[in-house]
Amino acid sequence: MFETFETLSWSGDHRTGFLRLIDQTLLPTQLVGIECRNVETVWEAIKSLRVRGAPAIGIAAAYGVCVGLQSVHDSCEESFFAQLENVVAYLASSRPTAVNLFWALDRMKAKAFSLRGRYVDEIAIALLAEAKMIHEEDRTICRAIGKYGNELVKDGDSFLTHCNAGGLATADYGTALAVFFAAAESGKKIHVFADETRPLLQGARLTAWELMQRKIPVTLLCDSMAAMVMKQGKIDGVIVGADRIAANGDTANKIGTYGVAVSAHAHKIPFYVAAPVSTFDLTLKTGEEIPIEERDESEITCGFGKRTAPEGVRVYNPAFDVTPAQLIAGIITEKGIIRPVDEKTIAAVLSV
Amino acid sequence: MFETFETLSWSGDHRTGFLRLIDQTLLPTQLVGIECRNVETVWEAIKSLRVRGAPAIGIAAAYGVCVGLQSVHDSCEESFFAQLENVVAYLASSRPTAVNLFWALDRMKAKAFSLRGRYVDEIAIALLAEAKMIHEEDRTICRAIGKYGNELVKDGDSFLTHCNAGGLATADYGTALAVFFAAAESGKKIHVFADETRPLLQGARLTAWELMQRKIPVTLLCDSMAAMVMKQGKIDGVIVGADRIAANGDTANKIGTYGVAVSAHAHKIPFYVAAPVSTFDLTLKTGEEIPIEERDESEITCGFGKRTAPEGVRVYNPAFDVTPAQLIAGIITEKGIIRPVDEKTIAAVLSV
Repeated sequence: MFETFETLSWSGDHRTGFLRLIDQTLLPTQLVGIECRNVETVWEAIKSLRVRGAPAIGIAAAYGVCVGLQSVHDSCEESFFAQLENVVAYLASSRPTAVNLFWALDRMKAKAFSLRGRYVDEIAIALLAEAKMIHEEDRTICRAIGKYGNELVKDGDSFLTHCNAGGLATADYGTALAVFFAAAESGKKIHVFADETRPLLQGARLTAWELMQRKIPVTLLCDSMAAMVMKQGKIDGVIVGADRIAANGDTANKIGTYGVAVSAHAHKIPFYVAAPVSTFDLTLKTGEEIPIEERDESEITCGFGKRTAPEGVRVYNPAFDVTPAQLIAGIITEKGIIRPVDEKTIAAVLSV
Repeated sequence: MFETFETLSWSGDHRTGFLRLIDQTLLPTQLVGIECRNVETVWEAIKSLRVRGAPAIGIAAAYGVCVGLQSVHDSCEESFFAQLENVVAYLASSRPTAVNLFWALDRMKAKAFSLRGRYVDEIAIALLAEAKMIHEEDRTICRAIGKYGNELVKDGDSFLTHCNAGGLATADYGTALAVFFAAAESGKKIHVFADETRPLLQGARLTAWELMQRKIPVTLLCDSMAAMVMKQGKIDGVIVGADRIAANGDTANKIGTYGVAVSAHAHKIPFYVAAPVSTFDLTLKTGEEIPIEERDESEITCGFGKRTAPEGVRVYNPAFDVTPAQLIAGIITEKGIIRPVDEKTIAAVLSV
């Protein structure tokens, strides 16, 4: 299905082309595409989680810059760069935690500035090429993550994952799920337990769907069942994605990840993070500095079209939590597996 | 509101009276009563969680026996006792985990057998009186649990609770929530974090509602957020109810309780169980012998009135998990607080 309908794709040239993406809020019951022909649509798609997952957000933002620059109709360099600044600042305001968003925007901006002095049309062409390169690089990165991660998988293993770090969270192959895809492709029999991942159920809606599409056996669980299943001895390892990783390895990921890591630790089950190196934010010493997005309470009180909590109830809805490095057995990147997870090993692997 | 609309109540005499209960599946948006005039309605109400919570299930079952015996229209002792056996066996098949169900049915049966030889109408009158006594005793028990539990509460404390062990799970005051009600009534300022409790959201729908009715500050969380909130230092203690407790203190309670206990342990937060002594099943040495009910997958895949997982996905839906005694700081009963939680202390407190 990923060949006929990609998570993200660009159609057309730099002037009138557009970003097309799967509206993931409608999955698994409807597979519908959205055409983003202005930057507001891209911003809204990121904000509303129509596109989500740190790497996919980065790719969407890069294409969002291209879409946003189409509204500059004169060939004045000043207007072009002013609009670039506006578009970048605007897209950066969509979601605060996923560092890949800022990484991609910085990269697009740096590309534009490196071409300052050229015709703006030429810069716009180069920016679309850069966005496509970010997109293409992500495919390569995800395959590499899958390959390295597969080294950790034994035939017959069962894994738990939380949220969706699959093809829908990236260009097409995922980070955590890349490991499962690579293991299955190499002929290993594996079983995946997928936490449904409240409040937005990315595990139930997206991860279960992706694994079923690829014929990998999957069992859906409520988040609260993971600890029991671990105690039953059914889980050989946990693999999750990441939204931002600090210099010491502390990892922000979807809310609930920390609880899974605490349980895995209590049951002596190895807990792995799978993420591209663009997820590292070395400007942050520890996870305490990672900004945590809080989202609207309606996601919890009436998340699926039906009110399930009293009117007026106070709600706490952090979108992410931080898992400390000491609970992480390894971080699977496209440059290899970082373990032990500490500042020194991270710096060493990232500098390769 | 508990004075105007009780969780359970009996109207009328033993011949034509009926059990009335709040349909808890409709809360918090609708407060609707169901009249149970035959045993099938009682069975269905227990099975479908219209009435739930171990003590409330026991009370409903006791009244269910009375309703079920109304269909015996002759005065033949043989027919009466045959119907008693049928009704008891039928009600016992509604839910397998809550021991209070079996405890209440055994008590009703023992009462009937103790009166063998009397007029069946006389026995039916005595059985209704017995059901009312079980109901009334539960009120007294819950107040006592609240009083003992309140000794553990300091002014300003914040607690986490999971599922609903409140007035809706008992005659009217709860077990875990009784502690919060008693603390608030004694003038202590407390704050309660309520796990929403997937899949059926008893925390969001019932616990948040009950605490708001009683003006106790409550913050609603997804189950997966509890570990993060503990790490933030916001939780001074955890108090939950129980569905069955083995002789060594291992405790079956709503799915997710075990994960909360593991997290509480990791964060050095005391984890308490609040339950009447009727919740103990001393015939079971450890929690491994407690039968765990598995419920329909639709509770997870389309629990919000909307399909939220792919068609055909495999699902695991245990309704309960078991928390080992070593993770439990104390069990708050109507006879006092059992601590440490071990076979000897349990036996000592229960024999008082």
